[in-house]
Amino acid sequence: MRSSPDSPSYVFILGESELETVPKDILNERCILANARTREKRPSNILLDASFHHAAMNKLDEGERRGRPDIVHFFLMLCLDSRLNRAGRLRTIIHTRNDERIAISPETRLPPSYHRFVGLMESLFQNGAVPSREKPLVKMETGWPLIDVVKAEKCDRLIVLDVGGICATPAEIIGSKPAASIAVVIGGFPSGSLHADLSPLNPEKLSLGEDMLRVWTVTSEMLAAAYSPIKGP
Amino acid sequence: MRSSPDSPSYVFILGESELETVPKDILNERCILANARTREKRPSNILLDASFHHAAMNKLDEGERRGRPDIVHFFLMLCLDSRLNRAGRLRTIIHTRNDERIAISPETRLPPSYHRFVGLMESLFQNGAVPSREKPLVKMETGWPLIDVVKAEKCDRLIVLDVGGICATPAEIIGSKPAASIAVVIGGFPSGSLHADLSPLNPEKLSLGEDMLRVWTVTSEMLAAAYSPIKGP
Repeated sequence: MRSSPDSPSYVFILGESELETVPKDILNERCILANARTREKRPSNILLDASFHHAAMNKLDEGERRGRPDIVHFFLMLCLDSRLNRAGRLRTIIHTRNDERIAISPETRLPPSYHRFVGLMESLFQNGAVPSREKPLVKMETGWPLIDVVKAEKCDRLIVLDVGGICATPAEIIGSKPAASIAVVIGGFPSGSLHADLSPLNPEKLSLGEDMLRVWTVTSEMLAAAYSPIKGP
Repeated sequence: MRSSPDSPSYVFILGESELETVPKDILNERCILANARTREKRPSNILLDASFHHAAMNKLDEGERRGRPDIVHFFLMLCLDSRLNRAGRLRTIIHTRNDERIAISPETRLPPSYHRFVGLMESLFQNGAVPSREKPLVKMETGWPLIDVVKAEKCDRLIVLDVGGICATPAEIIGSKPAASIAVVIGGFPSGSLHADLSPLNPEKLSLGEDMLRVWTVTSEMLAAAYSPIKGP
């Protein structure tokens, strides 16, 4: 594998991630109002967060799965600081449950503080770009179903990590086929599978093991495997 | 490397991590009092946190380096969910700047929510154990200099990741010598090197590259490399 002449470029896509502002249906719930008051923000401008809004979330469709900005945060911290990114071979995209597409410039240094990250994302939902529309490092667009996000990348290979996929090690997954560009889709939710049907794009559905691994474990293992072929012994 | 007959066991130690409650000297600073009031806790019972207490921290020795529970959180989430841990081959220890030693049972499931993690650590500082003294999953002891923490593990190899160490890939580091047990020390601070002199223990001082990598990048790469020898092609 290490003898591959190519150093493929990657795009890591967090698919159907649970990043959204508080939905209309629960804007007047007590825990939402209290949290918004503490944070001195309008309820409609704050991110839905399972660790603060749990009491209201059973009123939402798929409430058990939603409100997980922490997963997006972990994913981005790992991708943006990775050696793959530093080597200029990674692009990172967040796709959300409401079909937003968030593109993050590789040179972006996001705050490791969760609290600040949430503030940044809230400003992104309000303004469509941060730090500014003129020089955006993070940019959000609406109306992007996951299949369109993936299609637009026009990669040679599409790897979808899914607990029901064929078991393989990260090195096996990366090294199994030569390719100039590889899209890796990881589901941005706590459990379950993607809702989107990506089969028209002939994805390689793979899994790192029979256990349900958390997003940051899958992400970090895939980043390490993707980087190692060009730098190892 | 993959032909190694052994599956070494590992202990990952986060050394001199920046985890502490608010120091006496700044207990009466405005940002500390305000933060404690919001959280309905005594100032002396809350964790020092650079993202909330920055204004007061320039009054502290090494203020630029301190107050980083987020680093401990990321480190633990990666270690505890890793496949190395699931395979029963990892133990995880936090050592703090004030020479506390925090041992975490491998089966512990910590909250991915930063906010809840902080609450848990605050309760650990107050009670010495969580969830309870009778059945502790996380246990804290005082009076443990880093060198004693490492010595007590009696590992065959001691790897210290340091930006000034000899450059090597994670696979080279892990595979260079056969060993039944390997201690890996990673500094739990945002930049710089360990203060402790571990040279009496003949550490292998190594680095993943010339760049200053963040703790979670180093940790995730080392976890992936430590796991791969027994599972790869």
